Amino acid sequence: MEDNLSTFFNYVNENSQYLIGTLREAVAIPSVSSDAKKRSEVFRMADWVKDRLVKLGADVKTVDPGTQELQGQTVQLPPVILSRYGNDSNKKNILVYGHYDVQPALKSDGWETDPFDLVETEDGRLVGRGSSDDKGPVIGWILTLEAFIKHGIDLPVNLLFCFEGMEESGSIGLEKVVGDEASNWFKGVDYTTISDVGWSSKDKPCIDFGIRGMNYFSINVSGPVADLHSGVFGGVVQEPMVVLTKLLAGLVEVDGKINIAGIHDQVMKLTEEEEKTYHGLSLTREALENDVGGDCLMEKDMVQLLMHKGRYPSLSVHGIEGAFYDPGSKTVIPASVKGKFSIRTVPNMEPETVKKITFDHVHKEFAKLNSKCKLEVEELSNGMWWYASPDLPINVAASKAMKRVYGTEPEYVREGGSIPITIVFQEQLKADVLLLPMGTCGDGAHSTNEKLDKFNYLEGIKQFFALLYEFSLL
Amino acid sequence: MEDNLSTFFNYVNENSQYLIGTLREAVAIPSVSSDAKKRSEVFRMADWVKDRLVKLGADVKTVDPGTQELQGQTVQLPPVILSRYGNDSNKKNILVYGHYDVQPALKSDGWETDPFDLVETEDGRLVGRGSSDDKGPVIGWILTLEAFIKHGIDLPVNLLFCFEGMEESGSIGLEKVVGDEASNWFKGVDYTTISDVGWSSKDKPCIDFGIRGMNYFSINVSGPVADLHSGVFGGVVQEPMVVLTKLLAGLVEVDGKINIAGIHDQVMKLTEEEEKTYHGLSLTREALENDVGGDCLMEKDMVQLLMHKGRYPSLSVHGIEGAFYDPGSKTVIPASVKGKFSIRTVPNMEPETVKKITFDHVHKEFAKLNSKCKLEVEELSNGMWWYASPDLPINVAASKAMKRVYGTEPEYVREGGSIPITIVFQEQLKADVLLLPMGTCGDGAHSTNEKLDKFNYLEGIKQFFALLYEFSLL
Repeated sequence: MEDNLSTFFNYVNENSQYLIGTLREAVAIPSVSSDAKKRSEVFRMADWVKDRLVKLGADVKTVDPGTQELQGQTVQLPPVILSRYGNDSNKKNILVYGHYDVQPALKSDGWETDPFDLVETEDGRLVGRGSSDDKGPVIGWILTLEAFIKHGIDLPVNLLFCFEGMEESGSIGLEKVVGDEASNWFKGVDYTTISDVGWSSKDKPCIDFGIRGMNYFSINVSGPVADLHSGVFGGVVQEPMVVLTKLLAGLVEVDGKINIAGIHDQVMKLTEEEEKTYHGLSLTREALENDVGGDCLMEKDMVQLLMHKGRYPSLSVHGIEGAFYDPGSKTVIPASVKGKFSIRTVPNMEPETVKKITFDHVHKEFAKLNSKCKLEVEELSNGMWWYASPDLPINVAASKAMKRVYGTEPEYVREGGSIPITIVFQEQLKADVLLLPMGTCGDGAHSTNEKLDKFNYLEGIKQFFALLYEFSLL
Repeated sequence: MEDNLSTFFNYVNENSQYLIGTLREAVAIPSVSSDAKKRSEVFRMADWVKDRLVKLGADVKTVDPGTQELQGQTVQLPPVILSRYGNDSNKKNILVYGHYDVQPALKSDGWETDPFDLVETEDGRLVGRGSSDDKGPVIGWILTLEAFIKHGIDLPVNLLFCFEGMEESGSIGLEKVVGDEASNWFKGVDYTTISDVGWSSKDKPCIDFGIRGMNYFSINVSGPVADLHSGVFGGVVQEPMVVLTKLLAGLVEVDGKINIAGIHDQVMKLTEEEEKTYHGLSLTREALENDVGGDCLMEKDMVQLLMHKGRYPSLSVHGIEGAFYDPGSKTVIPASVKGKFSIRTVPNMEPETVKKITFDHVHKEFAKLNSKCKLEVEELSNGMWWYASPDLPINVAASKAMKRVYGTEPEYVREGGSIPITIVFQEQLKADVLLLPMGTCGDGAHSTNEKLDKFNYLEGIKQFFALLYEFSLL
C-alpha cells in the first residue's frame, strides 16, 4: 500500500496541470439544472461523465428518472449515472456519490472571470462554477480510478459511482432510483462516501459526523375575505398581521432560546467528553464573523457557538407570505398571511414529536390572544437529522487516510444544514455513510467566484487514493 | 329658487337616458392613470372633458404638470383642467374638484361585463369602471352646468372646476398646480366641494366632516451582511426577523389598543353630545361584517366600532420588505428586513409628536431586546387629518340641499381613510371644503364590477342643483 500511495502521490504532484485541465473541461459545460434552457447542457455533462467512465472500462448504466415541470414546460430529468469498476467478491464495495449539475452563474452576477472557464489564479485558486460544488470531487474520483488503470495497479476495492444531475434542484428522482436499485445495482454496497461537503474551517480538514434535520412550518392566519384599506378599516377589523407577528415573536428569543415547551428535552445530553471535543475545533469567532459580515453572532462563548452550529436545535423565522413586501408604502390590511419558520433538529428529536409540540404551542398561544381570526398551522416539510459516531469504522478509516495526506488528524464536526441524500443512501442501502470533503466552507459554493483551492483539489485526490486502501483494510 | 329646482328636477327625471348616456361616453374611455400604455387614453379623456366645457362656453385652461417616470419610461402627466363659468363679483365662487382618471380594470379580473361599457342593470345599477369613482360626479357636475345653459337659467354662483387625471396614481403634480394658481385662477374661491367620496352606509346620504391623517413608518433591522442559510447559521447568528417580529408584535394589541405611550393622550376628548351622534348612524354591524366578509370585527359595541372607524387612531401592520414572501419554503435567514406599519391620526394629534413618540417607543423596545442587530426607524410619509365642524356654513348648506332631494337630513360621519387633496385645497385656498358624496361605500370603487346606482347618479345631480342655490344664500 505504501509504495502504491507513494506512486499515486507523485503522479498527482507531477500531473497537476493534466488533473486541473480535466476539471476545466467539466467546468466548461454549464450544466445548470434549475434552468430549462440549460437542460441540454446537463445532458451534455452526463454524456461527458459517461464517456470518461466507459473509456476506463467501467460498467456504466444510466437511469432515466422521468420528467419534471420546469418554467412552464415538461422537461426530461438528467440521468442518474451508475457505474461499477471491479466485481471481486473478496473486496469491499465502496459507493461514491457526487453530482454533475451546478448552480446558475452569470458573469453579470459579479464574477471576476467567466464562470464557466476554470481560471487558476496566482494565489492558488481554481475559480469556476462547480469547481468545489461538485465537479471537483466528481472529476477527482474519476481521475483516481483512471490513475489506477493507467498505472496497472489493482484497485483495493470494487468502486461504484452514483452521479446525479439534479442535486442543485432538489435531487428530483434520485430517491426512487436509489430505492429501485438498492437490491440490484447497489447490492452489496459496504460503505457510501458522499463528496458534497466542505471543511468547516478554511484551514483544517474535517469529517462531518452529523447533520441537522429540519421541520418547516407555516402559521396561517386569516381574517377578512379580501385585503382591506387601512384607512377605512383600521381600528374596526381584527388584523391577521397583528396576530401573526405576535405568534412569530413568541417562538424564539433574540439569544436563540426556543420557547416551544419540550423542544430542548429531546436533545441528546452533552457528555463531558463530547464537550471537550468542541474546545479543540479550528473554526474561530473571527472566521464566523467574517462569514456573516460583522458582529451579529449570538452572545455566546465560542464553544457554545460551535455547539449551537450543529449539535443544538435552532429556530429561524424566514418570512411572511400574503403581506405587503415591496419597497415603499402601501396602506393594506392583508386578509390572509402565512408566517414561515423552521426548526433545525438534532439527535434525539423525533420529527413527529417536534411537529406535535410546535402545533400545540402555536395553538395555545393563539388561544391566549382571544382573536376572531382563523388559525391553521401547517408543516410544509420535515427531514430527519443524521448522526454517525466518530468511532464508526468508516470515520476511523477516513481519518487515517486524511492523516496520510495532510499530516494531521481531521477534526470531527457536525453540520448545521441538511444533506437529505445522506439519509436516502443510509436508509435505502443500510450501509454506513461517510461525508468526505474536498473543498472548504470558504469556497462560495453557491456564490459568485466559486473556487476550489488547487491545494484542496490535488490533496483531495490523494486522500481518495488513501481512502480506498484504508477502506480495503476494514 | 323653488321653481328653478322644480324645473331641473323634472329635467333630470325626464332625461335620465341622456344623462346616463353621457356618463357611458366617459366610461368608454379607459383613462387608467397607472398604466403607461393607457396614458394616451387619459389624455383622450381630458380632451373629452375640455371639449364639453368649451362647447358650454366656459373658460377653460389646461395646466401641464410636467412628466413622471412610469414603468421604466418618462411619460407626460395628464393636464389639470381648470374651468370657470361666470365671473360675477356679486356671486360666490364655488370650486368643484373631481378626477377623470380611473383605476385599472380587466374583464379577466372578474368583471361580469366589459368594464369600459357602462351597463344599466335591471336592479338599477350603472356598472362600469369609474361610474362611481369619479366619472359619475364629474359628468354629473358638467351636466348640471349644461342644464342651466340649456334652460337659459342664470347660475346662482360662479362655478369653477378643477379636474385632474392622476388621482388614482397619487395626484402627482396637483398640489403644485393648486399652489401656483391659488392667487390666479383660484383667486376668490369661497368654497371648495370635493366630489370623490361616498355615503358611508348604502342607504343614507351623508356628509363627511372629518378624515384621518396618517404617519407611515418602517422599522429597519439589519444584521448579517447578506442573507444566510438557516442550516449553516441557525443558532449562531442573531436574526433580524426575530427582532423585527418582536418589535412589530409590541406595537398594538389584537383588540386595536395602540401600545405607544402618549398616542391616546392627544386624541380630542369625546363629549357626551358627540357620543350621542354616533348612536343615530345608519351603518350597521351586519353591513360592516358584509364588507369585511365575516365576523372578524374588533370586539366592541357598534357605537365604539363607529368611533374607531373615524374619530380614534388605529395602527395597522402592512408587511415586511426583505424577508421571504413567496409560496413554498425557503431556508433563508434574511439579512435585512423592514417592517411597515402606519398610524391613522385624528384631531388633535400632531404628526411631529406622533413621529417622535413612535420613534422613542421603537428605540426603547429595541434596547430591551439587547440585540446586536442594527435598528433604524424611518417615517416614510405623513399626512395631516382634516376636520370640519358639522356646524360650518357649507355643511349646513349641503345638508339643506340634500334634504331637498332625499327628503331626509344627511348623517354626519368622519372618514377613516385619508383624502390628501382635501388638505391641499383647504391649505392652499384658505377656503372651507365640503366633502359631498354621490355614490355609496358599496360601489366597489377600486374593485371589480364597480357601479353607481342610477338612483344615486340622478338624485346626485339634483343635489348639485340644490347645492348651488343653497351656496348662493350663504
